[in-house]
Amino acid sequence: MLTLYQQQDSGNCYKPRLLLAHLQLPFAVVDIDANDGSTRTPDHLARNPNGKVPLVEFADGRRLAESNAILLHLAEGTAFLPKDAFDRAKVYEWLFFEQYSHEPTIAVRRSLTIYPARRDQATPDLMAKLHRDGNHALGVMEARLASADWLAGEDFSVADMALYAYTHMAGEGGFDLAAFPGITAWLARISALPGHVTIDWRPA
Amino acid sequence: MLTLYQQQDSGNCYKPRLLLAHLQLPFAVVDIDANDGSTRTPDHLARNPNGKVPLVEFADGRRLAESNAILLHLAEGTAFLPKDAFDRAKVYEWLFFEQYSHEPTIAVRRSLTIYPARRDQATPDLMAKLHRDGNHALGVMEARLASADWLAGEDFSVADMALYAYTHMAGEGGFDLAAFPGITAWLARISALPGHVTIDWRPA
Repeated sequence: MLTLYQQQDSGNCYKPRLLLAHLQLPFAVVDIDANDGSTRTPDHLARNPNGKVPLVEFADGRRLAESNAILLHLAEGTAFLPKDAFDRAKVYEWLFFEQYSHEPTIAVRRSLTIYPARRDQATPDLMAKLHRDGNHALGVMEARLASADWLAGEDFSVADMALYAYTHMAGEGGFDLAAFPGITAWLARISALPGHVTIDWRPA
Repeated sequence: MLTLYQQQDSGNCYKPRLLLAHLQLPFAVVDIDANDGSTRTPDHLARNPNGKVPLVEFADGRRLAESNAILLHLAEGTAFLPKDAFDRAKVYEWLFFEQYSHEPTIAVRRSLTIYPARRDQATPDLMAKLHRDGNHALGVMEARLASADWLAGEDFSVADMALYAYTHMAGEGGFDLAAFPGITAWLARISALPGHVTIDWRPA
């Protein structure tokens, strides 16, 4: 059985849980809190030299880090990764957009807002820059979702799962999604899908 | 023929040139300078709502952004993307590592050092943090390259190309690669490959 090293309230860790739930695959959870130094212990660095979660460990002991790499690997051959080469390339594009332009603005602003230990880093200049850059990222999503149901190709894919994770919590970081009707409708579409689980869910 | 919208001295734009050279595929180049606002003009935003280069445009008009998405798409079915599912997953892992942990530290510190227009952002605190985080990222690479020839699987892949781009210029950002003998040997291995091109190269 697959083991997920994770932090429950991290959007990056929610991504593999969401995919595994859709795939109806069993998995075990080991909680590792990035906020108390647990991702940088010798034990965890031996698992992942980059000192981060999520990390998946397969039954044979092999390990894979990086939330979006985990999504691509677990979705291979399933309905959640397009077969068409260009649609698949668009999934890649959205996943890299998520890690470079979306997570470092929208997730980081949420993190600086909700974790007391990080609040001393939340200077007005930084928070203003993150707000501006995060709204730019939301605008990029809106440009697609104003006229399409899903981010890449014609179907719900791991691109939608990856972007859902922090977008649906963007309000916690001070972003107003009312200005983005395409995104708002897309969020509702995802949360209504059969097999959807919320960020609180974990296997019994 | 494929068109690459790009900035010549950007490591992210060097990545597709390097792969296209290895693949011996012809392509046209359109220069767009991210430092003078050219990536945020209405014309370029119509091509890429995220306002960035590199961007590739195919003969049929379809477009793809995100350097590492371009690498994965163009490498599909070639020797530069492993066929083994887990090796391929490790390519994904390194590509997301590159965009989240490596480029935002090593490339950004270089950018703040070499572009005069960005120097007012290069505060001592930020430069110290980027140096620390960049050396951590180099340490993650060294942990692999101390005992392996290539980052993912047994062969040279797009993971190596993506990480080569900014690692081989890390000195321009004030990083000392002498402390990383595995990385140093790997850089030499890549630059000695048949078909390798330097960052200055562009199609005639």
